[in-house]
Amino acid sequence: MTEIKRIHHVAILVEEIDVALAFWRDLGIEPAKVADMPQENARIAFLPVAETEIELVQPTTTDSSLYRFLKKHGPGMHHLCFEVTDLQGTIDQLKSKAVQLINDHPELGEDGRLYTFIHPKSTGGVLIELYQLAV
Amino acid sequence: MTEIKRIHHVAILVEEIDVALAFWRDLGIEPAKVADMPQENARIAFLPVAETEIELVQPTTTDSSLYRFLKKHGPGMHHLCFEVTDLQGTIDQLKSKAVQLINDHPELGEDGRLYTFIHPKSTGGVLIELYQLAV
Repeated sequence: MTEIKRIHHVAILVEEIDVALAFWRDLGIEPAKVADMPQENARIAFLPVAETEIELVQPTTTDSSLYRFLKKHGPGMHHLCFEVTDLQGTIDQLKSKAVQLINDHPELGEDGRLYTFIHPKSTGGVLIELYQLAV
Repeated sequence: MTEIKRIHHVAILVEEIDVALAFWRDLGIEPAKVADMPQENARIAFLPVAETEIELVQPTTTDSSLYRFLKKHGPGMHHLCFEVTDLQGTIDQLKSKAVQLINDHPELGEDGRLYTFIHPKSTGGVLIELYQLAV
């Protein structure tokens, strides 16, 4: 039986990570890591907050969906990611309820995690990512 | 020294809570409580996820900022709330950095919590709420 473990991260689109970080530092939240993630067309700052994390995402190419989202909507919250215990189980459960997934099988990230996205049409306007960290 | 304790909740604006809850149940997340909150012009479903919570917020009046936000932007993520240990301390810290607050002193909620909001102009487009639960 698959389970939701926690909110893994809240992703926030930013124009410039270095500028955006100033506010988060003023609030008292420091990045644990800032890294270029070419496979995600982004530079990402990871800001741990207790058991979850804020991710500041700066698009680094102009032909990605992240870049188009930023240009269309401006900076702000982009998606919400939940860690699940069994991603294939969650996908099967959602498909049986006719929930629309962006990928209907687990994708493999470069760091070994499995992930997929649920389409905002099925969630009430929220782009939702699902992670399984331990394979 | 004030500290950020955790993400207290992620608030998601919805047209109809009962319709929106169907997706969250399909995902495996059940509401702990659904309550009318007249002082917030909203009906709210509280969905615990580990140490934080998803709040589904349905505006119940047509003259609130929540209602106007929903009509302008459609359903989706609305704000992010952090629990802090000392709200006045956080407010003082933010004001010293010229961060723009919507209320620059703690407001008292009906349930005894202290809260304020940081203006999205200062955060990079994210409406951020701050809670102090234990006074």
